[in-house]
Amino acid sequence: MTTSHWFKAHVHELGTGECRDYLLNHVVGRIVLDDDQGPVAFPVNYALDGNDIVIAVSADGEIARHATGHPVAFEIDDIDPANEAGWSVVVRGVAEQAADLPQDPDGRPYPWAEGNRSHLLRIRPQSVSGRQLIPA
Amino acid sequence: MTTSHWFKAHVHELGTGECRDYLLNHVVGRIVLDDDQGPVAFPVNYALDGNDIVIAVSADGEIARHATGHPVAFEIDDIDPANEAGWSVVVRGVAEQAADLPQDPDGRPYPWAEGNRSHLLRIRPQSVSGRQLIPA
Repeated sequence: MTTSHWFKAHVHELGTGECRDYLLNHVVGRIVLDDDQGPVAFPVNYALDGNDIVIAVSADGEIARHATGHPVAFEIDDIDPANEAGWSVVVRGVAEQAADLPQDPDGRPYPWAEGNRSHLLRIRPQSVSGRQLIPA
Repeated sequence: MTTSHWFKAHVHELGTGECRDYLLNHVVGRIVLDDDQGPVAFPVNYALDGNDIVIAVSADGEIARHATGHPVAFEIDDIDPANEAGWSVVVRGVAEQAADLPQDPDGRPYPWAEGNRSHLLRIRPQSVSGRQLIPA
């Protein structure tokens, strides 16, 4: 167990530019969707095409079935338990199926897991927000 | 951007014991809930009281408002981008407000962030599942 620090961390709301920098410099986040049991999240690597989050998943899998055409969130974070600090960014929007890979190679996701990940999802941000915990 | 490895990682479903070991040895996860806009996730530190996830949040905050009494998920993971590997565990259940701190000090969450985090939520697992990406 962690022990409680004497002074609690301050919560700082991140600006749009800070959120974008974190999104550009990270490679894995969590797609957050609703399935038949409620909300759930799964880690997946992603690419950033312009401002859009692009992921590639199995056409017959849970993520394709429950995310495509629905409101989702995409969350990234980095936590530093030793300092009880960290940050997180949440992108929200509808996950639309994309027919083609982005023109920009940097905008193309390269799935790590085996299997045919041919179902492309693009999340055009309706909102982007982030917060940071800064140790006191 | 990451480059694609020649061989993709294998996906391995974790057993109950493995999931529990990961839950015991981790301190921060993501509470996954539905708010007015859809599903969303926020990182929060947690404690394990028996099999239950226990978190402490602001009584007047988003998590208390949207999670209490509702189906939620709690997700933990650890990702290794260099090896394109990692694991994740998802606990699902209803987040019930707990009146008192757990008897066992190890079962008590110690929030890192400033502010009065007096709203205790306990998630009794209805399901626990996990998967691991093992590099080929």
